[in-house]
Amino acid sequence: MEKPYVIGIDMGGTNTKFGIVDARGHVLNSSSIKTQQYPDIDEYCDVLCAEMMKLVEVHGGIDLIRGVGAGAPNANYYTGNIENAANLPWKGIVPFARMISDRMGVPCRITNDANAAAMGEMTYGVAKGMKNFIMITLGTGVGSGIVIDGKVVYGHDGFAGELGHTKIERGSSARLCGCGQRGCIEAYASANGVARTAQEWLADGTKKSLLRDIKLEDITSKDVFEAAMKGDKLAKDIFEYTGTLLGQKLADFIAFSAPEAIVLFGGLTKAGDILMQPVVRSMNENVVRFWKDKVKVLFSSLNGSDAAILGASALVWDVDAQAPMTV
Amino acid sequence: MEKPYVIGIDMGGTNTKFGIVDARGHVLNSSSIKTQQYPDIDEYCDVLCAEMMKLVEVHGGIDLIRGVGAGAPNANYYTGNIENAANLPWKGIVPFARMISDRMGVPCRITNDANAAAMGEMTYGVAKGMKNFIMITLGTGVGSGIVIDGKVVYGHDGFAGELGHTKIERGSSARLCGCGQRGCIEAYASANGVARTAQEWLADGTKKSLLRDIKLEDITSKDVFEAAMKGDKLAKDIFEYTGTLLGQKLADFIAFSAPEAIVLFGGLTKAGDILMQPVVRSMNENVVRFWKDKVKVLFSSLNGSDAAILGASALVWDVDAQAPMTV
Repeated sequence: MEKPYVIGIDMGGTNTKFGIVDARGHVLNSSSIKTQQYPDIDEYCDVLCAEMMKLVEVHGGIDLIRGVGAGAPNANYYTGNIENAANLPWKGIVPFARMISDRMGVPCRITNDANAAAMGEMTYGVAKGMKNFIMITLGTGVGSGIVIDGKVVYGHDGFAGELGHTKIERGSSARLCGCGQRGCIEAYASANGVARTAQEWLADGTKKSLLRDIKLEDITSKDVFEAAMKGDKLAKDIFEYTGTLLGQKLADFIAFSAPEAIVLFGGLTKAGDILMQPVVRSMNENVVRFWKDKVKVLFSSLNGSDAAILGASALVWDVDAQAPMTV
Repeated sequence: MEKPYVIGIDMGGTNTKFGIVDARGHVLNSSSIKTQQYPDIDEYCDVLCAEMMKLVEVHGGIDLIRGVGAGAPNANYYTGNIENAANLPWKGIVPFARMISDRMGVPCRITNDANAAAMGEMTYGVAKGMKNFIMITLGTGVGSGIVIDGKVVYGHDGFAGELGHTKIERGSSARLCGCGQRGCIEAYASANGVARTAQEWLADGTKKSLLRDIKLEDITSKDVFEAAMKGDKLAKDIFEYTGTLLGQKLADFIAFSAPEAIVLFGGLTKAGDILMQPVVRSMNENVVRFWKDKVKVLFSSLNGSDAAILGASALVWDVDAQAPMTV
């Protein structure tokens, strides 16, 4: 009998979520552990696998599990290693896929979180049936997963798709990004970027805003969204600015791979139309003539909390995969 | 017997060159016609095919020819059509691959000139054996051919790889590009871009330069190169500036597809080290940390005059091709 289930892991700097997924993209059950609670990687893997086995037992045992897919920061798809991840407790190179498959007795394959999201979108979401699209994740940072000819692009070394670190501004006045460079789109179009814009504009300007009721350093992108929904001019202008910059970069990305669609995913997309409208306008103003009004911009259709688990699980269903699974 | 030869066509706005190529990348013989001399596309195809047949007869006749590959402006790989090419005499959509195969009685496949150059480099040049590289053509304009997993990227519509029209500057002071947008790298890092930089700097500045001996509007990139070779400070600064901007964009391109190498091709590469040095420095200053000093920048190893014919011919040898050949 074909094994009917896979396990998806969504490893973040704070939480590690995991669940059992069937071939139709239903998360049958799920659970989580605290990533930072385990400074020792062996202990982390022991606890994670023990917790996953509890879920597995509920659904008929490990013989029904085809494999494990994981989305994790700095995960190298080719090697199965997590390499020098700044936001995780374990330094250097961690052979994560190997450590999981050794403990679970089933194959494991890993990739970074944005690539996992792209896999999930292609397997279960709005990109189902699309051969060429770009996934942009707008969360704390800006990530990307690029799909060409039905395959996620990994490049020569496994790390392709770092579009969050392409530049929207240049020179010494451009914003410093967490990566050490200046002017990356991540420093502007992420949730953090929106908060920074608010802080800069409120510090410099004298314009009235509901945001002045909040302590400057405590302002979040959610606060800016809520103020905009109440009609606050400054807050609306911040989304207009953010969307304009993001749309300019999307025009550049289109020139690379001529996608059918760009799919936006992550916390910032909750802003809806006040983000989408300037993104689409700016993208079409900046794109090469023959792509004008031709490339769709879509919000992810995957349920936020399950999307990353689904995406990671999709790694296991991928029969055309370019990387082997550990066994 | 396997048919041993293919025909490669390099269609430019001025000349159409063509030649017979063997499997080792030798151009056995070649010839050309004037593109602009034939405002009627049927007449152009009649003359072109008659001239190609003359070459074919010298090498044993059409039964030894496997097919025809053509590199042409605005060529759509998927459809075999040339679509709305600004620099060609024929307007609208020209079913070029079909017109050639009908006349020659062998299959035909077409792509744009930069993609053809990438195919040529992968089949016969410095990118032989590479699975992931980006070809940047620095000629009158800036073109690109992107290779991922051993395949040229065509995207959803067949027009992927327009990196010359990604932006290096933004806003109303950025240079106007031939495409109608402002700030495209093509307006700076092409042969025309180098000439424009010289004209702008000479018009604005008071610095001494050998270039002042030439009428401002007649200055070419070749003049700038020759002045730089004679030690002219302004001319050297122009190449420093050009290379710096190009390197900044290459860093963005690396973040997309994580290539093993970037291959530079075309007239401007004759400048050699005075272009290469600032390109490599600037690229490594601007790239995401983990790619620093890891991505090779190479000059094309193909003989300039044969490269485009070789590249176009490589389309026919491509057994994994994503597009059908006309038959």
